[in-house]
Amino acid sequence: LKSVITLTTDFGLTDPYVAAMKGVIISICPFAYIIDITHDVPKFDVRGGAYLLYTATRYFPPGCIHVAIVDPGVGTPRRAIAIKTRKSIYVGPDNGVLSIATQHEGVEKVVEITERKYMMASISSTFHGRDIFAPVAAYLATGTPVEALGVEVNDYVKIAPSNVKVEEGMIKGEVWWIDGFGNIVTNIDNWLADKLKLGDTITVRVNTKQYKALFASTYGNAAPGTLLLIPGSGGLLEIAVNLGNAAKLLNAKVGDTVEIKR
Amino acid sequence: LKSVITLTTDFGLTDPYVAAMKGVIISICPFAYIIDITHDVPKFDVRGGAYLLYTATRYFPPGCIHVAIVDPGVGTPRRAIAIKTRKSIYVGPDNGVLSIATQHEGVEKVVEITERKYMMASISSTFHGRDIFAPVAAYLATGTPVEALGVEVNDYVKIAPSNVKVEEGMIKGEVWWIDGFGNIVTNIDNWLADKLKLGDTITVRVNTKQYKALFASTYGNAAPGTLLLIPGSGGLLEIAVNLGNAAKLLNAKVGDTVEIKR
Amino acid sequence: LKSVITLTTDFGLTDPYVAAMKGVIISICPFAYIIDITHDVPKFDVRGGAYLLYTATRYFPPGCIHVAIVDPGVGTPRRAIAIKTRKSIYVGPDNGVLSIATQHEGVEKVVEITERKYMMASISSTFHGRDIFAPVAAYLATGTPVEALGVEVNDYVKIAPSNVKVEEGMIKGEVWWIDGFGNIVTNIDNWLADKLKLGDTITVRVNTKQYKALFASTYGNAAPGTLLLIPGSGGLLEIAVNLGNAAKLLNAKVGDTVEIKR
Repeated sequence: LKSVITLTTDFGLTDPYVAAMKGVIISICPFAYIIDITHDVPKFDVRGGAYLLYTATRYFPPGCIHVAIVDPGVGTPRRAIAIKTRKSIYVGPDNGVLSIATQHEGVEKVVEITERKYMMASISSTFHGRDIFAPVAAYLATGTPVEALGVEVNDYVKIAPSNVKVEEGMIKGEVWWIDGFGNIVTNIDNWLADKLKLGDTITVRVNTKQYKALFASTYGNAAPGTLLLIPGSGGLLEIAVNLGNAAKLLNAKVGDTVEIKR
Repeated sequence: LKSVITLTTDFGLTDPYVAAMKGVIISICPFAYIIDITHDVPKFDVRGGAYLLYTATRYFPPGCIHVAIVDPGVGTPRRAIAIKTRKSIYVGPDNGVLSIATQHEGVEKVVEITERKYMMASISSTFHGRDIFAPVAAYLATGTPVEALGVEVNDYVKIAPSNVKVEEGMIKGEVWWIDGFGNIVTNIDNWLADKLKLGDTITVRVNTKQYKALFASTYGNAAPGTLLLIPGSGGLLEIAVNLGNAAKLLNAKVGDTVEIKR
Repeated sequence: LKSVITLTTDFGLTDPYVAAMKGVIISICPFAYIIDITHDVPKFDVRGGAYLLYTATRYFPPGCIHVAIVDPGVGTPRRAIAIKTRKSIYVGPDNGVLSIATQHEGVEKVVEITERKYMMASISSTFHGRDIFAPVAAYLATGTPVEALGVEVNDYVKIAPSNVKVEEGMIKGEVWWIDGFGNIVTNIDNWLADKLKLGDTITVRVNTKQYKALFASTYGNAAPGTLLLIPGSGGLLEIAVNLGNAAKLLNAKVGDTVEIKR
């Protein structure tokens, strides 16, 4: 039986950090099937990491072990935790990076990781990915139960729910992520736009500027360069430009306010 | 037995898209051996994607499933296809991205992918990589025959053969790819230069400017900074600079005309 | 039994080069477990590649095959070698890229790779990664002994030991690597700073400028923006900024001199 371990970090792929984690993992669990989710979370961006982790792990089968490390507080008293959900086990720092994915799956148990025998013999103060999280994930993959890692705790850090307001003819939210195509992913669920019809021209405000946009199901449904509002594949409304880069065109960045008006 | 699935996309590795595809694949085919060819095809560059796919898959063993997604028309009526060659099965949008690799391997059968049971239950309009191509590849990896995916079709989109002219003492072609070292890969087969001798000084024109270059077998055969014409490892002539970046030096870009004169 | 092959190159992940190597490997050894260490070694930077290789492979289990290719001399008379250490086998060009990792593991035998039957039938002059090093690694993974690859040699290229001086109250070294967080990794072993106490304010000179820095165990132990000297997780002293980029702040680059004074 193959155990899947996924990795999500802000370490990048240039440095030896991710590879060191993989070396640690296969030293403990030689049959682990390691899948990179991404190592390009913007440095220290816990909220971005939480988004990426959630958006990817939804599509993984049950029984996976998901490690997520965006950890500006490494080596300080912030806790290391493992969260057992109805579907998976998540491992990482207790700073909110695990909170969105785990809440969607349904949290069953949270354990503070304290048991030294599942860590490296020597633990650095700056690289818990290699010294704590990788070995813990590998031991979980070999069948170690979550309960063995330490004591159960009742609280863990949650990212504040994003602020979405629905008013008559208007939805207010914010930019949660900008993808590599320049698509602006909002924090507004697709279904909140269920009164819009495909083909409607609507008004989109990003920060202080407003624009006309076409409500469309996909990019290629309009002429190149057309500004679009699209029910995104991740369940969230996206502002996009066919064959173009919406974020550059609208000068949008993560955290900007978004208003959608009929 | 392990089934190899390769992935070639313009999705990048920062976003959760590639990971979502991998989650879908291992949900259906837990023993799949997934190999990334590249996820850095320039956005929407079907021709570049076709080049990268062909150049890499030549070196894979028979029986692999190759998924390639550069898909500006996702969600429009462009077809999804699977192409069975003498060696492999290719899966992707019918826009030419599969055409070079498959023609080199020898096309045996082309099927339009329509059978819903090999797709995700819910299909987005903007992410067929996750909802159609990944599950189709995974089902193929479990042994589903290509024929089960839909009806056979007789036509598929081919990228126009690249324009190479050979005249007395002169070869004309174009820039097909610029690699990360700045090497300018042309669309001119190495064997077309078989009248040149190693050590010859030849004339290379890129767009409107012409340069003297040394015909050499490898980069280190000349002083640092020397402009070189090299029979490339992918079978195509390359313009290179020893320990330098030829594309920057010559200000070359994909599609530029190239002339080589004795 | 699964054979682990790691890959370290300066090829990047955009081009088809790494994928071609993987295709060659699984053609010969279908059960190889391939792990990327990094493909973002700065182009032609043998010393940087040696650092990354060493820092990562320390954490891999015994019995792995490590391929490292930073090879500006490809196709020239520089040798191809395999080095058997007490723990692993390393494969690559004989230009020093393998020397740090192998010396740390303990060199047992060095073989010049000359046996054509373990290479591709046709060998290009510019891509020995695909035509020599990948197939050699794959044959090693199938159980071919190092001795079969060619004749034993007594010498191989070593990177000169880095220049570290310890004087009364002062340590002099240089910048060896700058990581993706902007942390400045020196070539000075952590233990050389064993007379410093956590919390001490010390003086750091990088090139001609000097700065006050806090000697700390981890980034988050000081206010954001604080300049820190940290015993690094890789065993080497690092200059860092909490939640900031030390290399940018100090305008540091690889090779710069570093002085640390109490």
